[in-house]
Amino acid sequence: MVLTDTTFRKLQDIVGNAYCSRKKEDLVCYAYDATAASYLPDAVLFPGNTQEISAIINLANEDDFSVIPRGSGSGMTGGSLAVQGGVILVMSRFNRILEIDKDNLIAHAEPGVVTARFHQAVEKEGLFYPPDPSSSEFSTLGGNLAECAGGPRAVKYGVTRDYVLGLEAVLPTGEIIHVGVRTAKGVVGYDLTRLLVGSEGTLGIITRITVRLLPLPEAIRAMTAVFDSLEKAAETVSEIIAQGIIPRTLEFMDNASIRCVESHLKMDLPVEAGALLLIEVDGKFEEVDILIKQLETVCISQGAKHIKFAETKSEIANLWKARKAISPALFQYGPDKINEDIVVPRSRIPDMVRRIDALKEKTGLTMVSFGHAGDGNIHFNIMLDKKNQDDLKKAEAAIDALFEPRRSVLPNLN
Amino acid sequence: MVLTDTTFRKLQDIVGNAYCSRKKEDLVCYAYDATAASYLPDAVLFPGNTQEISAIINLANEDDFSVIPRGSGSGMTGGSLAVQGGVILVMSRFNRILEIDKDNLIAHAEPGVVTARFHQAVEKEGLFYPPDPSSSEFSTLGGNLAECAGGPRAVKYGVTRDYVLGLEAVLPTGEIIHVGVRTAKGVVGYDLTRLLVGSEGTLGIITRITVRLLPLPEAIRAMTAVFDSLEKAAETVSEIIAQGIIPRTLEFMDNASIRCVESHLKMDLPVEAGALLLIEVDGKFEEVDILIKQLETVCISQGAKHIKFAETKSEIANLWKARKAISPALFQYGPDKINEDIVVPRSRIPDMVRRIDALKEKTGLTMVSFGHAGDGNIHFNIMLDKKNQDDLKKAEAAIDALFEPRRSVLPNLN
Repeated sequence: MVLTDTTFRKLQDIVGNAYCSRKKEDLVCYAYDATAASYLPDAVLFPGNTQEISAIINLANEDDFSVIPRGSGSGMTGGSLAVQGGVILVMSRFNRILEIDKDNLIAHAEPGVVTARFHQAVEKEGLFYPPDPSSSEFSTLGGNLAECAGGPRAVKYGVTRDYVLGLEAVLPTGEIIHVGVRTAKGVVGYDLTRLLVGSEGTLGIITRITVRLLPLPEAIRAMTAVFDSLEKAAETVSEIIAQGIIPRTLEFMDNASIRCVESHLKMDLPVEAGALLLIEVDGKFEEVDILIKQLETVCISQGAKHIKFAETKSEIANLWKARKAISPALFQYGPDKINEDIVVPRSRIPDMVRRIDALKEKTGLTMVSFGHAGDGNIHFNIMLDKKNQDDLKKAEAAIDALFEPRRSVLPNLN
Repeated sequence: MVLTDTTFRKLQDIVGNAYCSRKKEDLVCYAYDATAASYLPDAVLFPGNTQEISAIINLANEDDFSVIPRGSGSGMTGGSLAVQGGVILVMSRFNRILEIDKDNLIAHAEPGVVTARFHQAVEKEGLFYPPDPSSSEFSTLGGNLAECAGGPRAVKYGVTRDYVLGLEAVLPTGEIIHVGVRTAKGVVGYDLTRLLVGSEGTLGIITRITVRLLPLPEAIRAMTAVFDSLEKAAETVSEIIAQGIIPRTLEFMDNASIRCVESHLKMDLPVEAGALLLIEVDGKFEEVDILIKQLETVCISQGAKHIKFAETKSEIANLWKARKAISPALFQYGPDKINEDIVVPRSRIPDMVRRIDALKEKTGLTMVSFGHAGDGNIHFNIMLDKKNQDDLKKAEAAIDALFEPRRSVLPNLN
């Protein structure tokens, strides 16, 4: 499939000359995402409204070219890459927060709004939009919806899908649809809203979003707990959940993550520690005080070596600076990364950690684990130089071994 | 379509003679649901496992008959009625709670489990399954999923869809599928789980359910607030939400509902009151005390005439007895009911109440409103004798007028 000059001129007619390009220097800027892969598109478009997108899709059906919607290109699944060529639809002009409705705890926004900007806007009104993927400083609402993004707060608040009430989208037929509701409740008909969420642009291009909001929690408190081993930290996570405590976030970093961040940021982290838990609670003032004490008790009883509390906004922000630095800082361990986003039942995190430790020992490769322990979600990374064929083979075998199903990990219910 | 003797014998072979019938006296028992409609099926089957259901569906495709799954037949949408004849699949033998996994806050159950029984079982383990439709004493989990049931607690906890993690289902092709996850988090692939939830049996027959649970809240407190007018009560609801307070339940009853329950139950309800709000909060002990005081302040500032607190389990149960009695007690106003389940943006409840008041005055009909004010969900009823053609016409015109769209009620965002 090649985009002909005639087709390109038709695209120019739809969005205007200023909003489309097929210059190499422009195409290169939209060939990447957060995977290592890169595919040069045939053209890049910046549509200004839903009708233009509908017209582009109609033309794509007539002239037979691919259309790939793109937020900030920070995805980890290749969803915004022109793998088979085609036209990249950059959604950056869909950047309006249309309404924040305080009385009804809902908001309407366009998909190109950067998530952190949306957080700030609703928080200014005393409201709260929980989904907070680690990329929120640059990723967009539309991208978050397309990927059904999670993030550290998912342990208490759920993922993006749990906040989407309604959508406007352009179907692969060019048809513009409105699905879902703009009320607090809505259960009539097939749930097309949540079918579109997480569909990575394959079922439609999201052009307008209605989300529900919560009242902003009155207080947040945070703590870190240091453990001798990752296994002990993992067992602590299971114990916290088993005791019925649901923190706002419950993150872990293994020794390799801690060392990595420390050498990068010099924050005085405990580089000898086997693992570190970063725990946040939120709610009413009285509630968070009780919760943080309960958490301290659990951590001590599970053998935590050192516990530190963060109360001020800047202390808490500092902790998150460490946590969010892991991913970019990892490359000091090697030029290439093989990373997997693993979810296990929360109670089986210790088993998974044991399996990772065994693989590390067996292969001698640099493996780094961190992530959302609270919902059983582990970000697992092997850092290596892929030019070293021997290491690459070992790493691939390790990944295969990691995912090998065992009855003990995935119990059969029958 | 008539079910032939040959086909019936094949059905007998699949489920066993003891578990299928086409005797009139059996068919009549499964011809009804909670609508006034009634359709006699051609046969009624009580399948014992998923494989049997798959075999029944395969036979239905070969021999061309309809299959209608049925929980307790308490639905309000006709979803379990054999409108065009066919075979009713009664799911009552799918009645096992398979596992309550305290460590991971999930449970596995079969669809025929009565919801209240499921509540009791998880609460015994210190866990909480929030969806609580008013029918929960007799409706089943499978029926709740098929209808995406709500209930009073939806204002804080959301509806059934928000708790379903994974499903086993039999497709219209006879194929048995497993969708979703059994982990806390799962965002990979199209969200077929939530597409099945709310699909009323049209996309598949649910045969196994995995739900997420919460820790059981430490404390519940309840209060009632009496207002001169329904409008004042409705404005109070808006004010509560606007202040960022999310109660566990936030129900209202209008004067007609109060009178109706009082004459039915003799509970010493304020029969002169324009409206009554029934509000519950839950959480940690300290939290509920603060919340209930905040609610008292809001209600008084909005002109509540009388406020009463319920603290013990039996006091709270008594309040719910009144609320749940409304629907059955309504028939003292007339032999027939036309009821609508309306959702409006929460802040527009006062507008909706004004519209209902105007219709009541105009038509002179008996209209009763009550329901989940907290999420803008009003159960609206006209009680009448349908044999009175004049009243019936007036009622139908009133319903049309009620739903007539107005820009002021459904604001256009563009």
